[in-house]
Amino acid sequence: MTKRVVSGMRPTGKLHLGHLVGALRNWTELQEQYDCFYFAADWHALTTDYADTSRLQSYVIDNVIDWIAAGVDPERSTIFVQSLVPEHAELHLLLSMMIPIPWLERVPTYKELQGQLTEKDLSTYGFLGYPLLQTADVIMYDANFVPVGEDQVPHLELSREVVRRVHHMHGRIFVEPEPLLTDFSRLPGLDNRKMSKSYQNTIDLSDSVADVETKVRAMYTDPKRVRADIPGTVEDNPVFTYHDAFNPDHDEVEDLKTRYREGRVGDVEVKKKLARALNAAMEPLRERRAALDAHPERVREIIHEGSRKARVIAVETMKRVRDALHLAY
Amino acid sequence: MTKRVVSGMRPTGKLHLGHLVGALRNWTELQEQYDCFYFAADWHALTTDYADTSRLQSYVIDNVIDWIAAGVDPERSTIFVQSLVPEHAELHLLLSMMIPIPWLERVPTYKELQGQLTEKDLSTYGFLGYPLLQTADVIMYDANFVPVGEDQVPHLELSREVVRRVHHMHGRIFVEPEPLLTDFSRLPGLDNRKMSKSYQNTIDLSDSVADVETKVRAMYTDPKRVRADIPGTVEDNPVFTYHDAFNPDHDEVEDLKTRYREGRVGDVEVKKKLARALNAAMEPLRERRAALDAHPERVREIIHEGSRKARVIAVETMKRVRDALHLAY
Repeated sequence: MTKRVVSGMRPTGKLHLGHLVGALRNWTELQEQYDCFYFAADWHALTTDYADTSRLQSYVIDNVIDWIAAGVDPERSTIFVQSLVPEHAELHLLLSMMIPIPWLERVPTYKELQGQLTEKDLSTYGFLGYPLLQTADVIMYDANFVPVGEDQVPHLELSREVVRRVHHMHGRIFVEPEPLLTDFSRLPGLDNRKMSKSYQNTIDLSDSVADVETKVRAMYTDPKRVRADIPGTVEDNPVFTYHDAFNPDHDEVEDLKTRYREGRVGDVEVKKKLARALNAAMEPLRERRAALDAHPERVREIIHEGSRKARVIAVETMKRVRDALHLAY
Repeated sequence: MTKRVVSGMRPTGKLHLGHLVGALRNWTELQEQYDCFYFAADWHALTTDYADTSRLQSYVIDNVIDWIAAGVDPERSTIFVQSLVPEHAELHLLLSMMIPIPWLERVPTYKELQGQLTEKDLSTYGFLGYPLLQTADVIMYDANFVPVGEDQVPHLELSREVVRRVHHMHGRIFVEPEPLLTDFSRLPGLDNRKMSKSYQNTIDLSDSVADVETKVRAMYTDPKRVRADIPGTVEDNPVFTYHDAFNPDHDEVEDLKTRYREGRVGDVEVKKKLARALNAAMEPLRERRAALDAHPERVREIIHEGSRKARVIAVETMKRVRDALHLAY
């Protein structure tokens, strides 16, 4: 039987090239081999963005459009919204009864994120519980695999420990999910800092051809090169990191790098060629987006249809869980 | 409009006279004046009894029988089971996102119960969250009042603070519940310790006439009275505490107390009269129980019918909540 993969994304803003390289290219590839469930984790978005949720709905819709534009195929994969399958909340609650707080406090990202996002009060009960909600998200569908980067392995290890603890108390109920270790290459921002909406250093998946050209023109490059005839550094230079990630013409990229190192090419040429490569890479996304834009009701249909499909499985799982816990009347 | 009252009970064992005096008599009286929602808090039972749930189902059924036997009228009050209204879990999850952990740690019973129930591991995430689940239970139904004893006032105060915080962020959604301060007289156990199933010092609501006679015969009384002609102490003597609570013949009780103090009555007579009074008080319970026993399917019908009624309201509330939080698609 086709193995199942579950993966979610928090709808906290528009998606950009970092999401394409870091997740969506992987999601589209996984469709070839697995029965994939991809969801907009709107409840997870609340763990950090609970005070102002005014844009949550539109982020969810926009993100799903971006996923489909990037190649996630709603005919092959199940696309759903977490809050449209409220069984996730019930399973999370039941798991919460059995899991010691120290297990959650030990998850490395817990203290890390609290330290990073100091402008938000992350001392909330829900923020502490999010690895349990993630566990519920995954085991609800008997997922065999969860695509994770190195840094998320501890989360999945927690999920596996949760499953084992529940099984120890109440017998076998769930499938223990395994990590599908994935190389999530990190794309830097246009200014070579971490790519982040809050730094305004992103190229969004919905950017137009002209947007891309404008943004690439303003990209950070080697600051020593105040003239085109000064030899430059290619390493850790975002213009070349982007060429490597998006320009399929390797000869062109190698030629540019050589001339850049030798002070024989201007930034303008390097960037023009990058903008062209990026726009070429984004062309299929724009076509799929245009098709969706022509049928605005289609995205909601996809969301609701996928959530209905997901819910059929969730309802079955919860029946199994309630029976095992003697919560059936 | 009739004001609404919501109250729940954790199904952790058979109910006894302590529950009758401490809650059920109050529940039956509240029916006269309020639109009452009474629920078996099976998820709350998991906060402490999560490792072995094998008797949970039967406790719920037995408790509901005890409620109805005690006079809770399913025609007038809505009797339901918490887990049959899974919206409670969703609301709890949403609240959890907005509430700081220190608010929960400060609830007095949190550390207290952890200290008392040392045989159980109460370091779980769910145990910390139970005041939030209680909050969800109550505000789900726009409850105006929650019957609480003095010691539970801090719980309700937390619920009110939670509502205010959510309203501050997302606008008015809920009714702020008010305490209905209730004198929950505590009945001691048959041995004059705290009444508790684990001490085997209870008279259960389902005990037979003969059970009551046997248990009363073995009750603790004034230990100085090794003979009937030794003057005894009435105060803090459970035989007289029970007479005060259950014997409607005040003259008889006063006469017994006087003679007891003067060494002019044997324990046998005092206890016989107590057993008679108790059995008389329990007679209407036994009749209602017999009526239910004749139709065993009736209790499940009541539970499911009440849970359906409760769920209609819960679904409406959650629609309001999702709209306010922009979680609608």
